[in-house]
Amino acid sequence: MRPNIVLFGDSITEQSFRYGGWGASLADAYSRKADVLVRGYGGYNTRWALFLLHHLFPLDSKKPPVATTIFFGANDAALLGRTSERQHVPIEEYKENLGKIVNHLKECSPTMLIVLITPPPIDEEGRMEYARATYGEKAMTSPERTNEVAGVYARGCVELARELDLRSINLWSKMQETDGWQKKYLSDGLHLTPEGNAVVFREVARVFCEAWLSAAEMPYDFPHHSEIDGKNPEKAFQQKCL
Amino acid sequence: MRPNIVLFGDSITEQSFRYGGWGASLADAYSRKADVLVRGYGGYNTRWALFLLHHLFPLDSKKPPVATTIFFGANDAALLGRTSERQHVPIEEYKENLGKIVNHLKECSPTMLIVLITPPPIDEEGRMEYARATYGEKAMTSPERTNEVAGVYARGCVELARELDLRSINLWSKMQETDGWQKKYLSDGLHLTPEGNAVVFREVARVFCEAWLSAAEMPYDFPHHSEIDGKNPEKAFQQKCL
Repeated sequence: MRPNIVLFGDSITEQSFRYGGWGASLADAYSRKADVLVRGYGGYNTRWALFLLHHLFPLDSKKPPVATTIFFGANDAALLGRTSERQHVPIEEYKENLGKIVNHLKECSPTMLIVLITPPPIDEEGRMEYARATYGEKAMTSPERTNEVAGVYARGCVELARELDLRSINLWSKMQETDGWQKKYLSDGLHLTPEGNAVVFREVARVFCEAWLSAAEMPYDFPHHSEIDGKNPEKAFQQKCL
Repeated sequence: MRPNIVLFGDSITEQSFRYGGWGASLADAYSRKADVLVRGYGGYNTRWALFLLHHLFPLDSKKPPVATTIFFGANDAALLGRTSERQHVPIEEYKENLGKIVNHLKECSPTMLIVLITPPPIDEEGRMEYARATYGEKAMTSPERTNEVAGVYARGCVELARELDLRSINLWSKMQETDGWQKKYLSDGLHLTPEGNAVVFREVARVFCEAWLSAAEMPYDFPHHSEIDGKNPEKAFQQKCL
């Protein structure tokens, strides 16, 4: 009955229903209007995401999502020759893979609202601190991701969105507009604090609203309780749902 | 593909995806395993909830929920002769209505895990403070709900669960086991603080787990990223999903 909004991405999407998470905030904003479904896969890059497409978004679905966020790149941008190189995907392939994901979604539903989100910035010092706290002496000696390289992937993502005439959120740039973004928005140099989650929520809600998916303008599924006459409740429900 | 868990109730369910909310915590716990769908209707009592049943839980659904929480009573227990009397439902009718909801869900799916949750306790002083802060001089002079009456509905809910051989959570009793529950768990004498939400989450997760719906024991939908061979990713996906 009600439309689905799907959040497709890596750990930053998978963790989006934790305390203050951007996914939970979206679910709350669209409560009684749309269902927000999380399809987040920690550690995944766009190359691995391709294996999921036909399972998560079957082409013969009778109810494809009305909107999908695609939020990959943090793992693709892991550096070669460092501890997370297994997850690395070259920038050109990253863009190609994102394009394949978009094409698949458009094939699912030509009217689907598709929003590309860039990886967040990287706080290299935060990554090193996290590694030392987690692995002690065995910790990496150089960060496995750099902010500069994450920026290359962010630009690639935004360029692709422009080429495909899609909306995008440049989280890498947006977060760095705020002084102290390193600790304010990132908990371990990569994943989001509640404040960082709030930035993503505001940006996604803004872009959805600027498109056509404004929560405020969508009708409630059933009458607000104040519209129900205590002595004659049938009336409110006859008008709205019978 | 993945199973649905539905949260059906009033405002305490509708608000369960806010900061620290119990619904969001469940969605996080079942991430990559089940979808948690919120069907919360602020201000609704069980009488009005009956109008929604066939819409929210169609009998011909090909994919009924695997589990549903039914969490009503806070509005049914509003007192006659006070400001919220429009929402009042007598205790016997409350039990009958809960029974009708349960029967409908069982007709949808005889294997559905159904969990009844009682209304929380009421902090009458907190309700009055909230009314004065919100309405000033026009505020009610007596609370529209009392803890004693909420307790009657809580007992009715637990009794019905026992009669129908269903699992239940006596939130009214559980919360009052903790000193200072009035402010620790309730934000306005009725709705839940993040700590109060954490109690509901823990109880629902425990009951789901004691039944057969343990998140920890459910398989991931797709391989954990550590199982994917960077040079031969197909292998992990062939085993798991092709």
